[in-house]
Amino acid sequence: MPLTVLIAPSGFKECLSADEVADCIGRGVLRAIPDATILKAPMVDGGEGFTKALVAATGGTLHHLAVTGPIGDAVPSFFGFTGGAGPRTAVIEMAAAAGLRLVPRDRRDPTRTTSRGVGELIRAALDAGAERILLGCGDSGINDGGAGMVQALGIRLLDMGGRDLAPGGGALEHLARIDFSGRDPRLADVKLDAAVNWHNMLLGASGVARVFGPQKGATPEQVERLDAGMHRYAVAIEAATGIAVAEAPGAGASGGMGAAVLGLLGGRLHPRYDIVMRYMDLDRLIDRADLIITAEGSIDGQTPFGKIPAEVAFRAKRAGLPVIALAGTIGKGAASNFEHGIDAFASILKRPCSLEEAIAKAGKLLVCAAEDAARMVKIGIGLAPFCEATGKSGRSGLRLRPVSRTA
Amino acid sequence: MPLTVLIAPSGFKECLSADEVADCIGRGVLRAIPDATILKAPMVDGGEGFTKALVAATGGTLHHLAVTGPIGDAVPSFFGFTGGAGPRTAVIEMAAAAGLRLVPRDRRDPTRTTSRGVGELIRAALDAGAERILLGCGDSGINDGGAGMVQALGIRLLDMGGRDLAPGGGALEHLARIDFSGRDPRLADVKLDAAVNWHNMLLGASGVARVFGPQKGATPEQVERLDAGMHRYAVAIEAATGIAVAEAPGAGASGGMGAAVLGLLGGRLHPRYDIVMRYMDLDRLIDRADLIITAEGSIDGQTPFGKIPAEVAFRAKRAGLPVIALAGTIGKGAASNFEHGIDAFASILKRPCSLEEAIAKAGKLLVCAAEDAARMVKIGIGLAPFCEATGKSGRSGLRLRPVSRTA
Repeated sequence: MPLTVLIAPSGFKECLSADEVADCIGRGVLRAIPDATILKAPMVDGGEGFTKALVAATGGTLHHLAVTGPIGDAVPSFFGFTGGAGPRTAVIEMAAAAGLRLVPRDRRDPTRTTSRGVGELIRAALDAGAERILLGCGDSGINDGGAGMVQALGIRLLDMGGRDLAPGGGALEHLARIDFSGRDPRLADVKLDAAVNWHNMLLGASGVARVFGPQKGATPEQVERLDAGMHRYAVAIEAATGIAVAEAPGAGASGGMGAAVLGLLGGRLHPRYDIVMRYMDLDRLIDRADLIITAEGSIDGQTPFGKIPAEVAFRAKRAGLPVIALAGTIGKGAASNFEHGIDAFASILKRPCSLEEAIAKAGKLLVCAAEDAARMVKIGIGLAPFCEATGKSGRSGLRLRPVSRTA
Repeated sequence: MPLTVLIAPSGFKECLSADEVADCIGRGVLRAIPDATILKAPMVDGGEGFTKALVAATGGTLHHLAVTGPIGDAVPSFFGFTGGAGPRTAVIEMAAAAGLRLVPRDRRDPTRTTSRGVGELIRAALDAGAERILLGCGDSGINDGGAGMVQALGIRLLDMGGRDLAPGGGALEHLARIDFSGRDPRLADVKLDAAVNWHNMLLGASGVARVFGPQKGATPEQVERLDAGMHRYAVAIEAATGIAVAEAPGAGASGGMGAAVLGLLGGRLHPRYDIVMRYMDLDRLIDRADLIITAEGSIDGQTPFGKIPAEVAFRAKRAGLPVIALAGTIGKGAASNFEHGIDAFASILKRPCSLEEAIAKAGKLLVCAAEDAARMVKIGIGLAPFCEATGKSGRSGLRLRPVSRTA
């Protein structure tokens, strides 16, 4: 087997998605080492691109269907199944049914937009035989706490008069009671995991309505109504199930959808990259690789604290694999990453330029940077007969030792 | 012997001299590979830093003395001897006795400034037993065609009345005859090589007076006088010796000093980097090295046409050695260098920034870039047990082949 390179990058904010970054790096590596085997595990968050990245990385399938969109009309949507052995696992990104992009600018009113289509995707996945569901949260255009989603799965949200709540986060201020009698029974057997931003809270000053409401189009008054509705929702969920979603990390993800997954659908919330790595079976990919290349828009002294390159490096180092990190900006304190599993890094920049220029050319620069990195690695491979590499821990932690020059 | 890295960079214009560049790169490499052996061959031009770089690279000695400066008063100066076996070789930089830096701004009048001190350095080198002399040209503050230099060595430049010419390029318009009778006899036995910019011509529109006169302080009228003087000088030299300096490449170097070396001192002119590489014994250093790192401020599609990194790469490839090139700017067409012996390059930049910022931080950035490059090479050395490198031509031109993963 020739050299196998696993490419596990984050996206570059404002310019390249994680799978675009992975594609660029792969092209660059192949320019330098044409017979390399390239594995890709783009480290998507739960938002747009989540389903396609997981399907592509695992060799799975995409399924297209129409669902109720965030403003109530039908929208084309999709979900996927991962490939490989093991339980039949569906991948759903909420943004494909209730994303901000699906809400026309003049209809951006999160008191009315609904997550109903996400529930319809879950139902379709169950119809198709899903035993596990991975739900990606991010890039949402709703603030209904997942109310529409759970309604589509047979859970009734009722007002004081026993009437079903209308669509949208604005209706939650009328929530009185939750009726589980019509809940889709298959939810009891399916394993539901949601990939969420662990820092999204449901309520209060840093709650979902106040932090994300405005960017979804809410006025200051609407933000207050939405927050009050979320509070009522959390109280009702705890009353019905005993599950305290108010303080749960990630419960505020995607307009409060995390609260519904946790409190009403019997699912679990996970830090998004953690679960993505698990579902992508990153450790198995690492086992097949000789070298890891990761990337993020910026690498600095904060990177070791949970950023993608550090998380990837941590797993790579358990397998003793070398890690190269590419970035647009190598910032202050970046050298601390050398103690956290990154063996070398390089900026994609090739000349003095502005941030705007760098963003405009990021794809091209990334291809070149990957080629340059791979070329240097290749130089080292060629030099090895003249040195001796002794691994302290597997393949990493090298020290060079003299050997005969006539090798 | 551990990994041996030969560092043979150019200077970075406006910010770092070649030996500063070499020092920065050496520091970076040692950060990544602490037990590497570092060899340095900074590719100086003939100007400031020439002597010290050659002395340092060969383990030679520096000799200090006072000589006549360009405006006639004594200045502290120096010359060197290279180290090692072989003929006793003196290294002289003309800028150490007649450099522009030695001319106060308010005295910059190239009709009057003299190269006399350079002749005094040559005499001192002969006194000290020099069998060969390498004269570096560049950064000059004079435009006297080396008249002062040859006068200091006993050659008389006479006017129509048989009087010795006064110091400075302005006097050459009165030159009538050259008298060699008092010429230092030791010049016949010494091998004199001058490192010059091959493109510096003596006369005419692209001649030394017109191109360099103004930056040495000449007014437009003085430029015309200087050019006329050079013309007269060339005619007199050819009349006396039969040597046509008017059209000789490099004869215009350092205020026309090339003409004197070639026409009056029996020396030879050489493209500056070519002779520097020869005197530094670059090929011998290459033979001791496993890897070459070169550098220049900018690398682009023009680099293969005679720039330092290409010249270094050409020689490295004859020995089958891999070459890494570092630069502030990787410009248009840079990939063409891959066909001219450079195996990988990288910019020193780490984030979007202006040219001014890049120049201000060039040293620090260069250390980091060298460290990053060395780290990637080290990764490759560690990977080699899992690949097989088969050299097409010595150690370069590698192809990766599968081998057992249990090595």
